[in-house]
Amino acid sequence: MEEQTYRLTLCYDGTRYLGWQRLPKGSIQGCVEAALTQIFGCAVEVSGSGRTDAGVHAQMQVASFRAPKRPPQKILAQLRHLLPEDIGAISLEYAAPRFHARLCATEKTYRYRIWNSAQPDVFERRYRVALAQELSVDEMRRAAARLCGTHDFSAFCANAHMKKSTVRTLRAVKITQNGCEICIDLTADGFLYHMARILVGTLLEVGLGKREAESVGALFGGPRAAAGETAPAKGLCLMEVRYD
Amino acid sequence: MEEQTYRLTLCYDGTRYLGWQRLPKGSIQGCVEAALTQIFGCAVEVSGSGRTDAGVHAQMQVASFRAPKRPPQKILAQLRHLLPEDIGAISLEYAAPRFHARLCATEKTYRYRIWNSAQPDVFERRYRVALAQELSVDEMRRAAARLCGTHDFSAFCANAHMKKSTVRTLRAVKITQNGCEICIDLTADGFLYHMARILVGTLLEVGLGKREAESVGALFGGPRAAAGETAPAKGLCLMEVRYD
Repeated sequence: MEEQTYRLTLCYDGTRYLGWQRLPKGSIQGCVEAALTQIFGCAVEVSGSGRTDAGVHAQMQVASFRAPKRPPQKILAQLRHLLPEDIGAISLEYAAPRFHARLCATEKTYRYRIWNSAQPDVFERRYRVALAQELSVDEMRRAAARLCGTHDFSAFCANAHMKKSTVRTLRAVKITQNGCEICIDLTADGFLYHMARILVGTLLEVGLGKREAESVGALFGGPRAAAGETAPAKGLCLMEVRYD
Repeated sequence: MEEQTYRLTLCYDGTRYLGWQRLPKGSIQGCVEAALTQIFGCAVEVSGSGRTDAGVHAQMQVASFRAPKRPPQKILAQLRHLLPEDIGAISLEYAAPRFHARLCATEKTYRYRIWNSAQPDVFERRYRVALAQELSVDEMRRAAARLCGTHDFSAFCANAHMKKSTVRTLRAVKITQNGCEICIDLTADGFLYHMARILVGTLLEVGLGKREAESVGALFGGPRAAAGETAPAKGLCLMEVRYD
């Protein structure tokens, strides 16, 4: 039977999951693999572009897998039928034999959403973190500019001791304000464990006046404890994964 | 102790409730009354502008109640603290002694949201009804124009036999399309039981080609069975309540 490499694009509401990574239960990877295994009638293992944490969402997560060759549109329809309502299959296509969702990814963008108001945030409460205190977006932007570039992000990594290298290139941090919502878009060649959430936590401390915008450049290469707190998972969403 | 009439503006995600109306458990009215009773230390009964069905949401529901006179901002802060995360207190103010949220309401607008695509609708799935078949929005608009005006809406009412009058004035039906989302905004001087959802169900049958746009005018004064199916609750949201 001819084997084929597939590229699957997914979205998910991570609220009720323990994260992307396969676990005995409660992982997004596990749900997708169970559906594909049922469709193909043989064990299918999928590789995600990266592991999102428990409670983190994805507007676009890319996964690759190898399985018997069948028409992608038919598999996609079956997947949509089998997946739970909080995991969506956006597209499925044939990929080159050597395509691998994680190893081939060259850039990712995460968005962190903050509801900066004392007003209740009923309808988007699962996807935004509410913070009633006033934030200085200008100060946050000044700090963000100092965080961009190629640096040792050890202070922004929750498991630096397990890493060969904690050097990454943070290509852009864009902070936008739309009504009561503040979005922080982070683009990098790769993200360390908890990196997006620690960057956001540090920027929030700057926005609240607890930390100077100028001081964040001194964190590179330093210990985890020097950077800000890890921002809550539910505000974070993987927005895009890019490939060359 | 001086009594005061209050006007409370709320929003809620109706997903996990049995509707607005007080029940032994699971009603929005019951939750709000429990919180106010705790705040004031005496039984408080609230009147909503209308009863939303189980699963129906509100961006703006207005309620009135009488209770001892206290600063509204303080009560509002306590309410926000006590209410569950899917019920939000938007504002609280003193009202004229004779203000009553239902009796004084002169107009309401409901919005029905449809996700008209085979693509998954993961993030808004609680607030939109997914319908993959193509809808003719032009035909729906032609039917909507025939439904507007002062008519006997008995065919669009699930409990017409219990009503003194089933005559209402449907002031406007606006249908807008934005990407894959279709919104139907219904404005009337009042809505009968299930009226908004039966109007939407009838319009959807027109959009799907199951019913002629010209035929809907013949439904006025007719039996419930002549009109379309009751559209699912989760797509409906009370958007605004107006007072003179």
